[in-house]
Amino acid sequence: MPTAVRLTEKLSAFSDLWSPKIVAQFNGHDVMVVKVKGEFVWHSHAETDDFFLVLEGNLSIQLRDGEVRLGRGDLYVVPKGVEHRPVAEEEAHLLLIEPHGTPNTGDPATAAVKHAI
Amino acid sequence: MPTAVRLTEKLSAFSDLWSPKIVAQFNGHDVMVVKVKGEFVWHSHAETDDFFLVLEGNLSIQLRDGEVRLGRGDLYVVPKGVEHRPVAEEEAHLLLIEPHGTPNTGDPATAAVKHAI
Repeated sequence: MPTAVRLTEKLSAFSDLWSPKIVAQFNGHDVMVVKVKGEFVWHSHAETDDFFLVLEGNLSIQLRDGEVRLGRGDLYVVPKGVEHRPVAEEEAHLLLIEPHGTPNTGDPATAAVKHAI
Repeated sequence: MPTAVRLTEKLSAFSDLWSPKIVAQFNGHDVMVVKVKGEFVWHSHAETDDFFLVLEGNLSIQLRDGEVRLGRGDLYVVPKGVEHRPVAEEEAHLLLIEPHGTPNTGDPATAAVKHAI
């Protein structure tokens, strides 16, 4: 029987930070939840836009020409090729969407391995 | 200056039902918010999966072999080609993602025109 993906349930199943977990597939993309806190690395994705939706908490997406501040229920799409750095002062929970296999740091050598949960 | 898309703000800007409003673009897809109440038509999309995330309220996605019940913060991706009918007893607010130009009924002749807000 098909069932809904309950994001809060998925988020309660892990505690590691900056490690996206795949919860669904959509048109060749991974739909992921992630917990973040602190500063990520500056990076960009040459081949894909980067989708962020804040499920809990607050997130800043630093860009070279400004900063996007997101609260719960806010989304932002970083256009492909645009350098950005996500920063969260307190733990925040996000929904991310990226083409399957996209390295989260923009670089396969430093990227987190993404597992389905 | 780049700014976040505040989904509650977007949703407060209209009241018509079953009429998705485009709030962002992502990899050739439209990211949309929509208000729904009642029964939609049975339909399928031959070329795309259909992404639903419930922002407020409750939604049932009826399938020919079952029903997916979603509350706030639940998501479901209807695989391409799968017949489905969204139903909401009370008004619900959804985030939808579809390739740009996808008819919401699966048929251009009966589809809602999607505008950006």
